[in-house]
Amino acid sequence: MRAEIITIGDELLIGQVVDTNSAWMAERLNENGIELFQITSVHDNREHIIAALDEAFSRADIVFTTGGLGPTKDDITKQVLCDYFGTHLIEDTQVRAHIETLYQDRPDVLNRLTATQWLVPESATILENRVGSAPLMIFHRGDQLLACMPGVPYEMKIAMEEQILPYINNLKFKISNFRFREILHRTLQVTGIPESSLAILLEDFENSMPEGLHLAYLPKDGVIRLRLSSYGELTEAQMAHSFEQLKKLTADYLIAETDEPLEVVVGNILKSRHQTIATAESCTGGSLASLLAKHPGSSAFYFGSVVSYDNSVKEHMLGVPEEMIKAHGVVSEEVVCKMANNIRIQIGTDYAIATSGIAGPSGGSPEKPVGTVWIAWATPDGTTAECFHLGKLREQVIARTCQKALVGLLKLLNHKS
Amino acid sequence: MRAEIITIGDELLIGQVVDTNSAWMAERLNENGIELFQITSVHDNREHIIAALDEAFSRADIVFTTGGLGPTKDDITKQVLCDYFGTHLIEDTQVRAHIETLYQDRPDVLNRLTATQWLVPESATILENRVGSAPLMIFHRGDQLLACMPGVPYEMKIAMEEQILPYINNLKFKISNFRFREILHRTLQVTGIPESSLAILLEDFENSMPEGLHLAYLPKDGVIRLRLSSYGELTEAQMAHSFEQLKKLTADYLIAETDEPLEVVVGNILKSRHQTIATAESCTGGSLASLLAKHPGSSAFYFGSVVSYDNSVKEHMLGVPEEMIKAHGVVSEEVVCKMANNIRIQIGTDYAIATSGIAGPSGGSPEKPVGTVWIAWATPDGTTAECFHLGKLREQVIARTCQKALVGLLKLLNHKS
Repeated sequence: MRAEIITIGDELLIGQVVDTNSAWMAERLNENGIELFQITSVHDNREHIIAALDEAFSRADIVFTTGGLGPTKDDITKQVLCDYFGTHLIEDTQVRAHIETLYQDRPDVLNRLTATQWLVPESATILENRVGSAPLMIFHRGDQLLACMPGVPYEMKIAMEEQILPYINNLKFKISNFRFREILHRTLQVTGIPESSLAILLEDFENSMPEGLHLAYLPKDGVIRLRLSSYGELTEAQMAHSFEQLKKLTADYLIAETDEPLEVVVGNILKSRHQTIATAESCTGGSLASLLAKHPGSSAFYFGSVVSYDNSVKEHMLGVPEEMIKAHGVVSEEVVCKMANNIRIQIGTDYAIATSGIAGPSGGSPEKPVGTVWIAWATPDGTTAECFHLGKLREQVIARTCQKALVGLLKLLNHKS
Repeated sequence: MRAEIITIGDELLIGQVVDTNSAWMAERLNENGIELFQITSVHDNREHIIAALDEAFSRADIVFTTGGLGPTKDDITKQVLCDYFGTHLIEDTQVRAHIETLYQDRPDVLNRLTATQWLVPESATILENRVGSAPLMIFHRGDQLLACMPGVPYEMKIAMEEQILPYINNLKFKISNFRFREILHRTLQVTGIPESSLAILLEDFENSMPEGLHLAYLPKDGVIRLRLSSYGELTEAQMAHSFEQLKKLTADYLIAETDEPLEVVVGNILKSRHQTIATAESCTGGSLASLLAKHPGSSAFYFGSVVSYDNSVKEHMLGVPEEMIKAHGVVSEEVVCKMANNIRIQIGTDYAIATSGIAGPSGGSPEKPVGTVWIAWATPDGTTAECFHLGKLREQVIARTCQKALVGLLKLLNHKS
């Protein structure tokens, strides 16, 4: 079963919006045994949308579209689909009732433009968009299917999970060519080895992999994700066997046995041990805190942070002596260790991480160029610190500092297990 | 001049990686007068890449590819391009010298796989990848052109800015059909009006817009971005005129006259007034801090944050009395005002923002369901607070809280201007 995604919107093609929908949908499709063949982003333009639909239907069983369903003039997807499938718009009383209920406390929204949202293509199957006014539409075309959703990420997500995927899964009983394959992915994460050296280490493994098994290397911010994939050709047991081999071969560099973000891996270990962590951040400016706080359940292990962007905050809220900053500079082993130790004591956690560095573009010096970062880890057994050189681009320095901080903590945690 | 982007990599089609490259490239292309027609993401698969190239060349003058240039087996782009353009790999001594210099301190990287990186297609023009080992390749095909770059975002960005775009801009003197149009976008941001009501307000404006001018509505997290676009048909003066009209019509809702993120708009105002800000965050967990800190030059106005994820941090580091939390709950006007006032005094800034809410998925109650958020703004003239209901999805609650916090501050700052 092959699917394609067409994302519709000028904003995607002028760079005003990053398409985060497709990756999320791709993951859900794979979980449901549906291979995603291609993603295509097109303009809010009639001929362009139609050409993309023709091409997608020449390759795929299911086509998903997102975007272009708002009530404003620039959104044309619904009308184009009517023409494409040779149907026309009619009022849907159920959609109307839903929209009137949705906005019952906001009479200003119930205007004549919003009223166009309850006009739907006559030949489409309409599914309820619980959280918005744009109806979800399914078009059948022989044994093929088109599912049309809004581009607003949270509306799309709820639509996929509650309506579209259940509807498609149901079709396997109705349409004979709707066969779902078991798509398996297993990912582990390694650090401390160059990608090419890792590939040489795994050469024999890779040459003797079972037919239908694929190995991919995904390096980012100093961590390489190694992914094994099978599209319906391996059993779970065969996949597990190959994954165990891969784990053994990479044991010296292994930091995680799943594809989860490192802050989740860290959080799961801390939660299982009933331990806690705090952070004191300078150059990462709250990024490390936001990573640790962003996943559900993080309050069980993550207690808080002091973001000491200005030196006065380091002095007054983190107790870093002014003389220490004068003697060693803010980007120094002494200061970063002091930050980590003090935040750990002040907040009363088991662990603490502190960061101090030069994210750039300004602030560098010959001795400490942009990208110089000190990270300290305070633990119940003492404090360690390390200096890194993490590139020249501000956003990259911030992202890599967070990854290095988490990798360092993971090593300490794994060492204790 | 039309361009297309083909992003290559299985990781994009199984949802393991979000394609952030395309949006960034799209923006650069528009700035350089090149319209991006389509973005296509394909698998690391020979036939798939070739089919995508054929289709892109049937529509566009320039095709950009990213991805698939690593030294490992799963990366096949370079070999496929050799076959597509009927050429073969040869050693490039300049690329070899560059890679040997790049890794001179890391002999472990200079292995036989890395050595494949200095093999390049004979017919391609090779440009230097200053920060990585994968060479940048340009293929000419009649008056058409293909530019091939690595998928690692920061390598791609440096390649585009330093090599690829200058190379393409140079071609306008050499290839007659390389004509760059002046692509103009102007965006303003409004809040406090539903999208459909805004469209009704702008109906006359939209119906009488000059030929070649397009208006787009981009709602997100409570803010609507209104974008005017012209692809070579309007002059700057005509665009400015229409933009002024749009500003007047939306004056009651206007919060920003550019497409910049709100934290940049806030930052620019504060910098111009030599004023400063701090934050005290509960439910946003450092996200607001990381937004304020992420842009270059933010240390001029952003001083720091206390992320008080655990109540003990609210008490001990922000001075919120235990009895106040007991009496009103942490998600309350009293607590959030106290947080804002105290962080403003402790860090000594002009402004402070505090957030406290229930991001979910757990922690809600009938009285204070998931999505309930209090935000306080402490200013030299006093402190105000407001309660919001920002949905049910954790990531959405966090993102919307940040936007509401910035919108609230912008209103206060604009009021003072």
